[in-house]
Amino acid sequence: MTASQDRPLIRLLPGRDRRVKAGHPWAFSNEIAMTPAARALPPGSVVRLEGDDGVRHGAWHFNPHSLIAARRLDADPAAACDAAWFRARLADALALRERLFGAPHYRLVHAEADGLPGLVVDRYGDVLAVQANTAGMEAATPHIVAALTALLAPRGIVARNDAGVRALEGLAEETRLLQGDAAGAVVEENGLRFPVDLLGGQKTGWFFDQREHRARVARLAAGASVLDAFCHTGGFGIGCAAAGAAEVTLLDRSEHALATAREAAAMNGVADRVTVLRAEAMEALERLGAEGRRFGVVIADPPAFAKTRKDQPAALRAYGKLARMAATLVARGGFLFIASCSHHVGAGDFADAVAWGVQRASRQGRGGQGREARILHMGGAGPDHPLHPMLPESQYLKGMLLHLP
Amino acid sequence: MTASQDRPLIRLLPGRDRRVKAGHPWAFSNEIAMTPAARALPPGSVVRLEGDDGVRHGAWHFNPHSLIAARRLDADPAAACDAAWFRARLADALALRERLFGAPHYRLVHAEADGLPGLVVDRYGDVLAVQANTAGMEAATPHIVAALTALLAPRGIVARNDAGVRALEGLAEETRLLQGDAAGAVVEENGLRFPVDLLGGQKTGWFFDQREHRARVARLAAGASVLDAFCHTGGFGIGCAAAGAAEVTLLDRSEHALATAREAAAMNGVADRVTVLRAEAMEALERLGAEGRRFGVVIADPPAFAKTRKDQPAALRAYGKLARMAATLVARGGFLFIASCSHHVGAGDFADAVAWGVQRASRQGRGGQGREARILHMGGAGPDHPLHPMLPESQYLKGMLLHLP
Repeated sequence: MTASQDRPLIRLLPGRDRRVKAGHPWAFSNEIAMTPAARALPPGSVVRLEGDDGVRHGAWHFNPHSLIAARRLDADPAAACDAAWFRARLADALALRERLFGAPHYRLVHAEADGLPGLVVDRYGDVLAVQANTAGMEAATPHIVAALTALLAPRGIVARNDAGVRALEGLAEETRLLQGDAAGAVVEENGLRFPVDLLGGQKTGWFFDQREHRARVARLAAGASVLDAFCHTGGFGIGCAAAGAAEVTLLDRSEHALATAREAAAMNGVADRVTVLRAEAMEALERLGAEGRRFGVVIADPPAFAKTRKDQPAALRAYGKLARMAATLVARGGFLFIASCSHHVGAGDFADAVAWGVQRASRQGRGGQGREARILHMGGAGPDHPLHPMLPESQYLKGMLLHLP
Repeated sequence: MTASQDRPLIRLLPGRDRRVKAGHPWAFSNEIAMTPAARALPPGSVVRLEGDDGVRHGAWHFNPHSLIAARRLDADPAAACDAAWFRARLADALALRERLFGAPHYRLVHAEADGLPGLVVDRYGDVLAVQANTAGMEAATPHIVAALTALLAPRGIVARNDAGVRALEGLAEETRLLQGDAAGAVVEENGLRFPVDLLGGQKTGWFFDQREHRARVARLAAGASVLDAFCHTGGFGIGCAAAGAAEVTLLDRSEHALATAREAAAMNGVADRVTVLRAEAMEALERLGAEGRRFGVVIADPPAFAKTRKDQPAALRAYGKLARMAATLVARGGFLFIASCSHHVGAGDFADAVAWGVQRASRQGRGGQGREARILHMGGAGPDHPLHPMLPESQYLKGMLLHLP
């Protein structure tokens, strides 16, 4: 542990302290006095941050090579930022999740909003998956593992450091066991169980952010035929089957994901009503539409179409096309759930693209007449993915539920 | 009934048909050829709308004196738009609500999104409340009453034509019994019952749009002390009491609303844990904060602060102030729910105002240290308030749930 008086001091540039003073948890590289000493600090160092006016802004993680050069850890510049400090932050995040959920399956830490910038921890019962998306959290991983062990005594802890954002911090992607054993992990959600493979060659994991959307869609599925496109391990579709859907088709291009989905269907006693279709989802949607297939509920929850800001226009066209094809497959009086997890596509633009696509689908299906559609819900990730009030743009998930009379 | 060949023909101006062709359900007065014959049509007439190119756009309600001059009723220009036509549209809206809810208490018709522009119908079991917000729906009220009677055989139907938007259509505000008897109406929501007074001198009614938010807040309230500011008839607070809150304070300036809330507390068996405080809410929040009162859950659900676009800057300042005062009253580890129902305040601006206020509250309470806050949820009205895909801006309700560690 660095004693706080020995902790390096980084200064904001004159006149560039407005955002930090307003409570923003980041300082950008062009707001910081990048002295030779600052540039020489190892990425991920804990520093004291002060304004040009001498105002103390606390303890921060610092990476001289990242656009987001500093991320606030603690308002106290002398905060230890050791295992005990992490344990206190984690205990606070845990207390919130225990208020929110009845079972120990959730995103336990969601980065800045939980006061742990760049750190993500998912909890699958007695197995934890940790993502360190900054050099600071990478360097702090031993403290984090110690703190998680002290707090939760997990059977296993896995590093799932496979997020592309690590490159911005100069970190390589990797997935490895940090401690214990992670075999046979299972996630429980909305009363159902799904296997999660956290270390396998083709990783599956789980997307906790859609929990509320899965429950919302399942409530509409009783008696319906359901198509779950880009199904991954079947969270939406198996939820529908368990809620009484007549038949569910799971569509994905990954044989590994579909094998896990089949296993999940069996675990939840709905295998007799679930069939899998292995294909490129966009191609299969077009083909099913041309064949005249129709479903009472269609789910389209693709991976991010926009990986960078530059991809945005093409991604919006792709979301419009997806909405057109998926809506074409919805039977009269049925429902469409469509989602985007692209950080670089805003909620308004996504809604416009979906409206564009649904409008075109209807014309295709009904000879020049505009088919009416109702938006029943637009929402983001569940409450175990909180937002920092100064980072509302970090709400990346956009889900829309439509009724198509 | 007007035979369709006798129905007046209104034309879009050359080059002004883009939005209507894209499926937008409105035509603005500056998009329409306002001939002397068009100007002379009685407000609320059913017309045929065609483009300058002769393309038929169907049957529309027309009001030559309104900025939104035409609203689409049916893609078929010959659609009868009589009681049978209304019954079909209402049956479609009803079928959706019956999929969504287990009890007959909901917004049955939400205007454009239900294919009935300008019409709102709320269902309180066997009593219906109708709002006709356009001259077209005002003129069609006899058809609407006949259709509702045929479909639902209600005990009573009330016209709650007290929305300010009626002035834009040249209509007066009024509340009156259209048919039957509306005395003793009760709304059921989330398993609780609340009296609703639809005709009294001081009307109460019910805001169905917050149903999901009330359930979400109540799930966090077990064991907590709760303050429900701008409580109206106590929907949030009594929901919290029923979910196990230790004590609930209901704050409103209306004695009539509080009397109804007291009655509701008794109906739901929680009167012993509910107290009422009659005061101007903004003043009371400031005073309670200064007195050092703290609550585990604070709800602030005020009436619209921005009645017009011009009010927006002042409204945002008021929302910021409200967030500051309400967050000050939240105990460590507690929750704040704050909402805006102002059409003229966008979701992003509202979130910024709330962040500003919460940040200031924390400084006040903790001597210069920024208090962290997490946004757990941002959402709109429930699914019985669907949106038309071309009118996403009609999402007026913005609710935010925050956790304040």
